[in-house]
Formats: sequence, C-alpha cells, structure tokens
Amino acid sequence: MTDQSTPMINQYVGFVETDSFENSFEAVEQLAESIISGLDLHVVKKHSHAFFPKGITIVYILSESHLAIHTWPELGVIHIDLVTCSPRTKVEFEKSLKYTLNGYKVRSVKVRSVDIENYKP
Amino acid sequence: MTDQSTPMINQYVGFVETDSFENSFEAVEQLAESIISGLDLHVVKKHSHAFFPKGITIVYILSESHLAIHTWPELGVIHIDLVTCSPRTKVEFEKSLKYTLNGYKVRSVKVRSVDIENYKP
Repeated sequence: MTDQSTPMINQYVGFVETDSFENSFEAVEQLAESIISGLDLHVVKKHSHAFFPKGITIVYILSESHLAIHTWPELGVIHIDLVTCSPRTKVEFEKSLKYTLNGYKVRSVKVRSVDIENYKP
Repeated sequence: MTDQSTPMINQYVGFVETDSFENSFEAVEQLAESIISGLDLHVVKKHSHAFFPKGITIVYILSESHLAIHTWPELGVIHIDLVTCSPRTKVEFEKSLKYTLNGYKVRSVKVRSVDIENYKP
C-alpha cells in the first residue's frame, strides 16, 4: 500500500416535498443558484434536461465537485444532491436549502449526509 | 396536505481507492459507461470537465436520473454518485463497480446507499 492521502469530500442530499409547482427551467436554475451562492460555491459548467411530460434535471459541475437537482413538479418532489471537496457542513446545507425554498409551499425537507468520513481506511 | 405519491429514488455512492492512475478522459468515460451498461441505464446527455493540474469530473444525465464521477488520479481516488428513479439494488451497484474496476489496482471499494426510504412521510 502506498502512502496516499484522501481528499475531503462532503456529500449532502436534500429531499423536498411541496405542493405541486411549475415545470420551469428558470425556477430550478434559481433554486440551484441560490444554493450555490448561499454556500459560496463556484460554477464551472451548467447542464440541464427537460423530461417528457414533466420533470427537469439540472447539473452544475462546480470547482468544488457538483450539484444536481431533479424535479417532479406534478408530485411536488425535489431531489438535491451536493458533493463538495471544499468543507461545508450539513447545517450550512440545510440553512441554504430552507432559505432557497422560501417561495415554495413546502410540506417537508429531509436532509441526509453521506458518511464519507468512515470511507477512510 | 394533498394526496401525492413520491417517486422511487435509489442513490448509491462508491468511494474507491486505488494506486495512482492515468488522468485520462477515456478511462473515466469507460468507467462510467461500464457502470451504465452494467445496470442497464440510459444516457440522455454527457458532460465532463478536466481540472488543473489533474482530476476529471464526468456527469451523465440519465433517463433514470444521473451518474457523476470525480477522480483524483494522483491520490488514486474515485468518487461515484448514482441517483436513479428506476429500481436498482446496492448489490447490483456494487457488482457493476467491481466489474468496472477490473483494470485498476484497487486498494478498497466502499459503497453507501442514501437512505431515501425514510424520506417518505
């Protein structure tokens, strides 16, 4: 085994349930960019796709890793996946999420962190 | 509260440590596409970025959600993030990962599933 260090990786997943919402690129972009600016992350590239009949996926490659958002507007569901190799806490992620969702009729917000720490050998 | 159903979402994260490897787009694409075909997933769009001095991020928007891979070739670290709204098991993900990593000098493979089930209200 060689003497290698491992990168610091934080990963947080938000699962949001709201009343049904508009199937709009602009709204999902706004959501993503509010999280990105709230957490002081930096966009390298942005990509998106609209599914038929509804649902938008948006992926930002960040200089710190990535943010992906999937929406099911008719079900009122938003899945938010953030991976960052620059330290951000779960509390910071939760705060940015709640601030970002201000305009939605939110029913629940659940946040999970992926246990990366215990990955280290 | 309205009567809404929630989508089935599986999310698996693989954290792989190997000996240092080549900083090559082709190798990361091969890795991603082997996982995608092994799990019978379907690519909608593919995006990538090379970081300076090393490290590649590749993101596939799938008709089932997304696969993102981040690499730190000099440290021998690969982070693999799969979100799918079409059911795949953790065991299937692990199997596809081990098959895919056949050409790497793997030191450890750790897989986590994000507990989406308990998100349901």
